[in-house]
Amino acid sequence: MFLTLEQAAADSRFALTDVLRHIPWSPQGLIPAITQQHDSGEVLMLAWMNEKALLETLETRRACYWSRSRARLWRKGETSGHVQHVHDVRLDCDGDALLVLVDQQGAACHTGRRSCFYNAIQGDQVVVTGNPAEVGA
Amino acid sequence: MFLTLEQAAADSRFALTDVLRHIPWSPQGLIPAITQQHDSGEVLMLAWMNEKALLETLETRRACYWSRSRARLWRKGETSGHVQHVHDVRLDCDGDALLVLVDQQGAACHTGRRSCFYNAIQGDQVVVTGNPAEVGA
Repeated sequence: MFLTLEQAAADSRFALTDVLRHIPWSPQGLIPAITQQHDSGEVLMLAWMNEKALLETLETRRACYWSRSRARLWRKGETSGHVQHVHDVRLDCDGDALLVLVDQQGAACHTGRRSCFYNAIQGDQVVVTGNPAEVGA
Repeated sequence: MFLTLEQAAADSRFALTDVLRHIPWSPQGLIPAITQQHDSGEVLMLAWMNEKALLETLETRRACYWSRSRARLWRKGETSGHVQHVHDVRLDCDGDALLVLVDQQGAACHTGRRSCFYNAIQGDQVVVTGNPAEVGA
């Protein structure tokens, strides 16, 4: 299936149900999902979806992941209010990664930072590039 | 370690060797790496690194991944010439994902498309959003 998509010209269309059947889900039934702010391009987080989370995300247009630590569906923002309104969902060439373009309300990171990727590797050091909510507020 | 980083104020610095020791590598010794064009913000691909690939990437400033299909280090562009010059490497809050900001030469995707994320899910269809090199050239 994904080989067919690789060779397809722009604007070719395929049934989503056929494509979903061919996703190479991990042994745990998961696929990594990159979440990006749709307008600024900022990469906010990386999380995981199972098929149920992906279908709920597509249906509700609110990002829903599979929490590996809690082993349950994780409706982003359900406690914090920091929901993600979904603009676009894309699969990569071999179907083993998702890109989710969202409008992030508040902070993506549970530390209160806008993005989870605040630890910059610089030379032989890791530099924290933003304050947590408790410090920054 | 990552709990300490979570609570650290901006500009706090930690030894890279200490941080690397606490990365929760997968059972296969891997971590997912998101690759993003440093200036446009376009998400180009998702691949995997082991510690050796990460250290080589940091040392050479050229992206090096672990190819799961070929089970060997994959120096991006070694055959295609489509190398990735590394501007910045970041770890996320819990240390289980990398963001690699690069200057992508040519195409990131093996199909010749600039980004691997060309399959857009729209309603009950998947729409291919770019031509492969053979069609588009």
